[in-house]
Amino acid sequence: MGPHVVPRQLVWLSRWQAVCAWGASVQHRTQAGVSRIPSLLSPAGALGSSPLVRRSSSSTPPGAPKVVLTQQRYPVTRLPFSVVSEEDLAAFERILPGGVVTDPEVLEASNVDWLRTVRGCSKVLLRPRTSQEVARILRYCHERNLAVNPQGGNTGMVGGSVPVFDEIILSTTLMNRVISFHSMSGTLVCQAGCVLEELSRYVEERGFVMPLDLGAKGSCHIGGNVATNAGGLRFLRYGSLHGTVLGLEVVLADGTVLDCLTSLRKDNTGYDLKQLFIGSEGTLGVITAVSIQCPPKPRAVNVAFLGCPGFAEVLQTFSSGKELLGEILSAYEFMDAECMWLVTHHLHLASPVQESPFYVLVETSGSRAGHDAEKLSDFLERALSSGLVTDGTVATDQTRLKALWALRERISEALSRDGYVYKYDLSLPTERLYDLVSDLRARLGSQAKHVVGYGHLGTGGDEHHGFCWPVAQGFFKFEHRTVTVPPTWGDGNLHLNVTSEAFSPSLLAALEPYVYEWTARQRGSVSAEHGLGFKKRGVLSYSKPPEALRLMQQLKALLDPKGILNPYKTLPAQA
Amino acid sequence: MGPHVVPRQLVWLSRWQAVCAWGASVQHRTQAGVSRIPSLLSPAGALGSSPLVRRSSSSTPPGAPKVVLTQQRYPVTRLPFSVVSEEDLAAFERILPGGVVTDPEVLEASNVDWLRTVRGCSKVLLRPRTSQEVARILRYCHERNLAVNPQGGNTGMVGGSVPVFDEIILSTTLMNRVISFHSMSGTLVCQAGCVLEELSRYVEERGFVMPLDLGAKGSCHIGGNVATNAGGLRFLRYGSLHGTVLGLEVVLADGTVLDCLTSLRKDNTGYDLKQLFIGSEGTLGVITAVSIQCPPKPRAVNVAFLGCPGFAEVLQTFSSGKELLGEILSAYEFMDAECMWLVTHHLHLASPVQESPFYVLVETSGSRAGHDAEKLSDFLERALSSGLVTDGTVATDQTRLKALWALRERISEALSRDGYVYKYDLSLPTERLYDLVSDLRARLGSQAKHVVGYGHLGTGGDEHHGFCWPVAQGFFKFEHRTVTVPPTWGDGNLHLNVTSEAFSPSLLAALEPYVYEWTARQRGSVSAEHGLGFKKRGVLSYSKPPEALRLMQQLKALLDPKGILNPYKTLPAQA
Repeated sequence: MGPHVVPRQLVWLSRWQAVCAWGASVQHRTQAGVSRIPSLLSPAGALGSSPLVRRSSSSTPPGAPKVVLTQQRYPVTRLPFSVVSEEDLAAFERILPGGVVTDPEVLEASNVDWLRTVRGCSKVLLRPRTSQEVARILRYCHERNLAVNPQGGNTGMVGGSVPVFDEIILSTTLMNRVISFHSMSGTLVCQAGCVLEELSRYVEERGFVMPLDLGAKGSCHIGGNVATNAGGLRFLRYGSLHGTVLGLEVVLADGTVLDCLTSLRKDNTGYDLKQLFIGSEGTLGVITAVSIQCPPKPRAVNVAFLGCPGFAEVLQTFSSGKELLGEILSAYEFMDAECMWLVTHHLHLASPVQESPFYVLVETSGSRAGHDAEKLSDFLERALSSGLVTDGTVATDQTRLKALWALRERISEALSRDGYVYKYDLSLPTERLYDLVSDLRARLGSQAKHVVGYGHLGTGGDEHHGFCWPVAQGFFKFEHRTVTVPPTWGDGNLHLNVTSEAFSPSLLAALEPYVYEWTARQRGSVSAEHGLGFKKRGVLSYSKPPEALRLMQQLKALLDPKGILNPYKTLPAQA
Repeated sequence: MGPHVVPRQLVWLSRWQAVCAWGASVQHRTQAGVSRIPSLLSPAGALGSSPLVRRSSSSTPPGAPKVVLTQQRYPVTRLPFSVVSEEDLAAFERILPGGVVTDPEVLEASNVDWLRTVRGCSKVLLRPRTSQEVARILRYCHERNLAVNPQGGNTGMVGGSVPVFDEIILSTTLMNRVISFHSMSGTLVCQAGCVLEELSRYVEERGFVMPLDLGAKGSCHIGGNVATNAGGLRFLRYGSLHGTVLGLEVVLADGTVLDCLTSLRKDNTGYDLKQLFIGSEGTLGVITAVSIQCPPKPRAVNVAFLGCPGFAEVLQTFSSGKELLGEILSAYEFMDAECMWLVTHHLHLASPVQESPFYVLVETSGSRAGHDAEKLSDFLERALSSGLVTDGTVATDQTRLKALWALRERISEALSRDGYVYKYDLSLPTERLYDLVSDLRARLGSQAKHVVGYGHLGTGGDEHHGFCWPVAQGFFKFEHRTVTVPPTWGDGNLHLNVTSEAFSPSLLAALEPYVYEWTARQRGSVSAEHGLGFKKRGVLSYSKPPEALRLMQQLKALLDPKGILNPYKTLPAQA
């Protein structure tokens, strides 16, 4: 070891060598403690009073079982990256004075995902404040062949945001400055570590809204949202981040800073490089700043929370809403009765309507309250009079709006209090979407504690209109032809969740590949919005052909030839 | 020559060797004839009665000067691709029986861009009908090192759609089938050669609209629209193709068919590969099919055509429109008095309003006519009473709507009748956007016939809010910092056009790099929506940093290692 060793780190290193050596027992490794340190997870700056949606350590139920190391639960082999040495720590300390965290108790919160399903054993967490610092870190890691796990709010669903082994955690927590905001156009430029809810508040005070919203808003970082191409609750109205993100600053694996942080709406000068990084889950580069187009804050927002007697009525209500609400329909969410049970039971929320097999949340956003109220009233009248909806309530004030949204937004949190959660996030033909939930309930029987379905209905189409046959295990190939098909509903996004008291290999075997094969037969997507991360990387080929997979691997090799960026994520392990 | 030579082609080859040999005089080369063959340009299937917007050979004014060969006018050197041999022609004939066009008179229309500013001397035009045929062609060309120029409707503005030398022209004209359409969701899947206007008619009959619209709709192909990331007249409402295109089928340089033709609205399985090809101008792959999300056809459409006393009033009217029209504002276009002179003089259109220094076209699209009329009426009342607008007319029926739109859409056509056109398509800070037009009028004086400005106002922001200094010739680097800036208007898209009787090197020298430097100083884009093609590829570095350029070159090398796809386009010539 060189002369740069910092004594405190020496002590720490030897502690970790004891508790997290490859091959040590699980108990030994996890004894370093499960208590998360809130100050590490919470962003700089006060978050205000929004406990409803915060996903931080504080939501970890007391007495929850310890999380097994990923390398123990999953068949994964560490790649031959270097191991962080004391010299490396000293080098990081020179790059980021005071920004190198090595205390195992503090690291615990960043080694475990918020769902408490995967656990890495990283020994060091770096907290840069600028893209230049990120560049220096990556340049160093690239030279030293050290693997890096970029981490935003650590709210991901697929194990993409925590290390698998001992990857260095590169956190964007302190990169939380707004760089600029255009008060006329609504263009926001900010660092990647800004928390979505804080940004929402910031732009709302200035007459705009963020084009995305999701349950994890209290913790998730905008950089992580972009890296995972988060969809969320405003997708129906404002579309995908591929359309609303105007520019990105990205640090590449070798430390090159790629400045595509334009805030021009239109710019056709060469390839649109930023698109490569949207949804690449930190495997192609580290997003350090984001330029995003915020739509004007609607002057009138209404939320109706309705009970429906069946899933067919959920669909027909959506169709009616599209017709009568038109351009002001901004969200259409559904949840089943078991979801309502979970949020009322685990989170003590109160249902605002009579018990129903299904519930829908309909949001309108418009510029003229009178016009919007008239449209909404016509819609509700038709829905109630035709029996599509059996009970309902409407909110226009902020407090009630938030309370209604909480019923939908906090399902994920309620699930995590129910036990171990098997999560699936699928795009499926809308008319068959809920069949999978019913199928699974029958299939799993008492093996599962709960099988629930909720999600978003979109306006997109699912049909490929061609022949479809399996050409290789798990992959279906299409041959195009012109056919006349009956009208269908387009695709919907089903969040299918199964809970059990604890992780069970046999329950997992009953779920997979069953769920993926069911989805592939419907030509759906095995990850609609959560991404692939670590847990789903093996199922990419259910939704993408081999040629696409090959090109993805080539892009990874081009942008990150040593594979140091978020290894074991997104792409399947290469043979 | 081998045994596969087709006698007709032999004759043809020798003719071309005479008229298009490297180094022959310009007169010699162009004598092959300038008359375009309409049947070649017009897509299969009747277009119906839309002469207003068709950009076909018929619009070429009689007696127009012959177009000089690109290799004569521009400093460009042919790369060492193979030359098409008689054996190659025979091989193509085997792949595409009857789809190989070698008649020089027929080829003329595909060798010259519709602006009549560049000319290649390709000897063969291929017209495949399926992506499999495209794959076989590219596989063959890749092996033989033959350069290929993909061509859609040949309506591009930057010389991207015609060969520079003797590249094989690969036309999508016969790939014009609709593969499927979802009558509930509005998802259209079609081959790349479908003409935009035909698709518009097709989906409008089914209750939807295409998410893009542009002046060239009567000729342009959807594949070309996607390949050039066309913006157009509905951008304000429906956003960019990066958001509305759901999937693509692309044939790569080596003939690999990349099937990303999903029509799912949400699919986060791996990198979003289709994004790479949107805006890549055929240099990374040939788009053979497109899946696109069509929004519902608005039940009420209104167009107001208004006269404004100055550009400041154009901006204030826009601001007022955003406030009062909200979610139903679907287009806001402006044009100056010289544009109006051109369309009334060259195309004999009638101005519907009193002569004004500026005109704006405001379109609303909504779901409820009564509500929309009320919003529009409030907007017009305020605009007129406050003096922002001095005269105006409103249309709601299709015929008058189209007549008002024609004033704006046909400016490009009117310009091409005025003489040689120097075209610039810039994103600039809205408040300074028209200054460039005024500056240029003063700078050019009598050198130019007309200097005109028209375009779209968007909602995006232009500001980078940092220091800006030139670091290399023509490139400006930004350093981010948090600053408080006064409210600005966001960016607008200026179509700046200068005409002269004929091409003039001295006029060009007065325009460039002046226009690009002016734009770079404002941190704008030197190509907002037209792309770079052949004519603008040298100016990429005014809007993108060297690191981005390097990555673009790496992507090109990865996807097209031999560089056979649309060479001499998009990226600057490598040193």
